[in-house]
Amino acid sequence: MVDYLSRRDALRKILIDKAESAVFLDPVSIRYLSGFSGSNAALLVGQDNNLDLLLTDSRYTQRAKDESPDIEVQIDREFTKQIHKQLESKSIKKIAIDSTRMNIAQGEALSNKDTFELVKIRELLAPLRSVKDEYEIKQIKKACAITADTLWFLINDLRPGMNEKQISNLLQEGFLKRGADGLAFASIVASGQNSATPHHEPTKRILERGDMVTIDCGALVNGYHADMTRTVFIGTCADWQKDIYDLVMKAQEAGRKKLTAGAIAEEVDEATRKIIRDANYGDFFVHGTGHGVGLEIHEPVFLAKDVKTKLSIGSCITVEPGIYLPGKGGVRIEDTCLVTEAEAEVLTPGSHEIICVA
Amino acid sequence: MVDYLSRRDALRKILIDKAESAVFLDPVSIRYLSGFSGSNAALLVGQDNNLDLLLTDSRYTQRAKDESPDIEVQIDREFTKQIHKQLESKSIKKIAIDSTRMNIAQGEALSNKDTFELVKIRELLAPLRSVKDEYEIKQIKKACAITADTLWFLINDLRPGMNEKQISNLLQEGFLKRGADGLAFASIVASGQNSATPHHEPTKRILERGDMVTIDCGALVNGYHADMTRTVFIGTCADWQKDIYDLVMKAQEAGRKKLTAGAIAEEVDEATRKIIRDANYGDFFVHGTGHGVGLEIHEPVFLAKDVKTKLSIGSCITVEPGIYLPGKGGVRIEDTCLVTEAEAEVLTPGSHEIICVA
Repeated sequence: MVDYLSRRDALRKILIDKAESAVFLDPVSIRYLSGFSGSNAALLVGQDNNLDLLLTDSRYTQRAKDESPDIEVQIDREFTKQIHKQLESKSIKKIAIDSTRMNIAQGEALSNKDTFELVKIRELLAPLRSVKDEYEIKQIKKACAITADTLWFLINDLRPGMNEKQISNLLQEGFLKRGADGLAFASIVASGQNSATPHHEPTKRILERGDMVTIDCGALVNGYHADMTRTVFIGTCADWQKDIYDLVMKAQEAGRKKLTAGAIAEEVDEATRKIIRDANYGDFFVHGTGHGVGLEIHEPVFLAKDVKTKLSIGSCITVEPGIYLPGKGGVRIEDTCLVTEAEAEVLTPGSHEIICVA
Repeated sequence: MVDYLSRRDALRKILIDKAESAVFLDPVSIRYLSGFSGSNAALLVGQDNNLDLLLTDSRYTQRAKDESPDIEVQIDREFTKQIHKQLESKSIKKIAIDSTRMNIAQGEALSNKDTFELVKIRELLAPLRSVKDEYEIKQIKKACAITADTLWFLINDLRPGMNEKQISNLLQEGFLKRGADGLAFASIVASGQNSATPHHEPTKRILERGDMVTIDCGALVNGYHADMTRTVFIGTCADWQKDIYDLVMKAQEAGRKKLTAGAIAEEVDEATRKIIRDANYGDFFVHGTGHGVGLEIHEPVFLAKDVKTKLSIGSCITVEPGIYLPGKGGVRIEDTCLVTEAEAEVLTPGSHEIICVA
């Protein structure tokens, strides 16, 4: 059983001196703090658990009881009204909210013509959510294991004549067969010149001998995401392809080595970027080195320039440098990693070396 | 080719007298107005197409060019800065935004300490998006056809011994095989007592003779959603099950008959609700009668009490009454329908009568 109350208590500690309550209207924060996974809800976190309140509608009466047994549940579509009532009963005026996860109309309704003061905090739960607990690590490990298993089986079966869309469908079927709930995100299958587009959408383009194929995919398990990329070659690998592959492989390894507790996010980014820049491919590495993974596919901590966050044991973060040569092709190698005191644990295992299939 | 410029021109007409520009940061609005389907972008719609501007990051350089050829694209992660620059060049201060689709932090950055005035409008695009154009209707029809085809094949194969999760996986595989891009939403498969929960998440519960099974599912095609529900019986159907089934069937038919151009949304809701209420099951019909379907699975128009919107030709809306008896079971029957001048066209065809399988 997940201890959601501990998570709310940890939030109360963060809130001290800032506000006596916090209100969430976004499904991800609500799931993290209460376990409730429905699509429409509001969560009030008060000074103690007796004031905590989960509101949802009558489609979810049973689910709310099942998923959030340790919190008072009210079935009432008028979320704002009920929250105000609960706060007024304790004379609470200050409501902390996550300003990146509440829309403007919701904020205006909640502050109710200045009767209530909104204490706006960006990514309010990031300090908590970026350090995964035992349950979360278990789910992410399961999602990553399914992802890696599916991807390696598929890579082994790649043949000229298959198309990108077909490969993307096989990934989805493979995830489901292995017990995933679905996709962490729409799979990227980018072959030949298409691999020069980091976020390519699979087409009916047919794999040919000499293609590089970048496959970026992830399974979803109990709300938790996995993220993994490999680039492989169909039949042969030309010299220019080998050159950029080797560079990305070295950069990715350097990133993983740097990804330890105490390291600063931007240092990990710089570790991968330096290798690619020193080889004069810096302009072709067009995205950050990585991102946190959890209840969302992209969440803090981000490994990018100017991010000063110190990494903690228990963070799950991707390391995914890439080189993309317009009109030619590209390479990306990505693992989801668990930050430990020593070198990061790779949760999406398997070779990083050049592989030619078919 | 979809005429995105016409959509932006239609928005300009709505904005007249309110603001000279509009800014969107949410992917759905941006996709509707520009065709761009990436996850990270900003769209400025100005006084004319020369001022329109799509901003995204370097992962999407190629996709933005391909999907939005009729609009200026800038690759720059500093969305707000670029938008301000563009607006300043034309001395524009008033920015219309959709207050239900922009978060508080984004709104504050955009208004930039009151240099710019935000004109906040709820569901700014709803009047446009709720009337589908030819391209949209084609996509929704395709998604609905795949959904109905998959669901009827599956219903035919239902047998005691199968579990809910397995059925939900078969739906997903069936959609993909028939050319869908994925799921419109997580499928609901609710058997036996579980069918009393409108939004039940599939479990490993095994189908038994005498169960009612509610299956609510939809395919996703080019960003467009389908939504369809049938409740079927395994082997036999008890009298109490037949009673509520017949009621829901009559209510759903009444809803479809009422769903015509010129009808008011709440009237359609009342048409289904009256039949269920008159039979003393009113308390067990715990949700609205339906919702719009398009680039989102739930979007305006909503068929519910107090919704005064007049329905238009070209709206795609679900009709889905249900009765849920706690501890016993429930029935829901749902079609996605296209509003026409005459009776609505059912896009998710197939029998509404009682079906006992296996």
